Amino acid sequence: MPSASSRAAERPARDPSATSCRKAQGVAAQGVAVVSACASEFGEEFCGDLRRLMEWRRDVRRFRIDPVDEVVLRAALDAFDLAPSVGNSQPWRLVRVESAQARRMVRESFERCNAEALAATDPARADLYARLKLSGLREAPVQLAVFCDAATDQGHGLGSRTMPEALVHSVSGAVALFALCARAHGLGVGWVSILDPDEVTAALDVPADWTLVSYLCIGYPCEADDVPELERAGWQSRKATSLLMR
Amino acid sequence: MPSASSRAAERPARDPSATSCRKAQGVAAQGVAVVSACASEFGEEFCGDLRRLMEWRRDVRRFRIDPVDEVVLRAALDAFDLAPSVGNSQPWRLVRVESAQARRMVRESFERCNAEALAATDPARADLYARLKLSGLREAPVQLAVFCDAATDQGHGLGSRTMPEALVHSVSGAVALFALCARAHGLGVGWVSILDPDEVTAALDVPADWTLVSYLCIGYPCEADDVPELERAGWQSRKATSLLMR
Repeated sequence: MPSASSRAAERPARDPSATSCRKAQGVAAQGVAVVSACASEFGEEFCGDLRRLMEWRRDVRRFRIDPVDEVVLRAALDAFDLAPSVGNSQPWRLVRVESAQARRMVRESFERCNAEALAATDPARADLYARLKLSGLREAPVQLAVFCDAATDQGHGLGSRTMPEALVHSVSGAVALFALCARAHGLGVGWVSILDPDEVTAALDVPADWTLVSYLCIGYPCEADDVPELERAGWQSRKATSLLMR
Repeated sequence: MPSASSRAAERPARDPSATSCRKAQGVAAQGVAVVSACASEFGEEFCGDLRRLMEWRRDVRRFRIDPVDEVVLRAALDAFDLAPSVGNSQPWRLVRVESAQARRMVRESFERCNAEALAATDPARADLYARLKLSGLREAPVQLAVFCDAATDQGHGLGSRTMPEALVHSVSGAVALFALCARAHGLGVGWVSILDPDEVTAALDVPADWTLVSYLCIGYPCEADDVPELERAGWQSRKATSLLMR
């Protein structure tokens, strides 16, 4: 890694952040010599619990059918108000799906898409695929469709001119934070992507220019495990993330 | 919301999850009557700290130039190994950008794209845009490019047949979890999207079929604030997330 001084030399003297950083150095100096894996005021115990939460936070497909406490759900949904977004555009649009008709249409889209996926699956893996439970659409007491409104004026387009996909990235990032927050509050969340997004968009009667990012099944999980269900079922194990250097 | 019994009636008796759920009801029953916003073993204090972390976890553009402790960075990067992904495909590909040449090419892409964005900005907002600090590319001691490898065999295509974008969603979700985890460990993360993804892909010499999702500036933040910088600067304030019912 290039030394700090060489990067400091690159930096124009008038860069306002340089000044604010130099001012901050003194104050923050004691934070520099890190002796543990947690250098924040949140502390070791919180960081350890956060890691355990992330180990736990796996896609849930098996839900208890009892209703979700609305106070718990609201606390988890606050994650959307707190999530960062490109240009502060907050492009996520949430639709809570309650009507029997809308749920049936979504479930039928899943069943059709899943049957097609099974038919297209390598015969050597088809039996295993057929045995997998891939959604909690029948049981999950709360179901939430999350769309991206890429036409939003909010944020005035900042950050999304050359990479407009940053809007969708903001939405899927917020969904990930919601799912983590929900798990911390005792709720399981399952992200269903075996759907025809046009069918779901039509079923929910939302603006045609909204893009479906995620359909979420939410409820109290039947079981807790720190190994993903697809890994336990022998479909796909995890690999360590590799890091290229450039 | 339809009653639990009406949904139970919809559910075929042979649904294996129904059995496992009924078995789980007894054990989990005491969790049903939730009296607080936290129904999990993580507890009220953790949930409160997680909320404070999410309030804090905002895009960081002002970094101290001192090197990042590698133990801290590694602990934060573990978020990628723990993040869920469609079909357990783990399609994220990480490139740590260290060479002066690669960093210069990325910075030049940013400066070109940002100048074009400024030129295209509503004249009434151009002065404000010009004053915004939109990246920490000059100061951030650690820089990480995150790509999506949509051609990966891992996961055997499960969940990405009708919504192949679920692969990119998995990557941006993992980035959001990494940024949250990094903040818990005392690191700030800034997501730079004012870039030409083709220029960055070329600068980093990665497979042409990888898609750039995110370019991250990482380091110890100069300042901590629970209000997004774009809101403090008067560019865009936040709005409460609305929830449509269907």
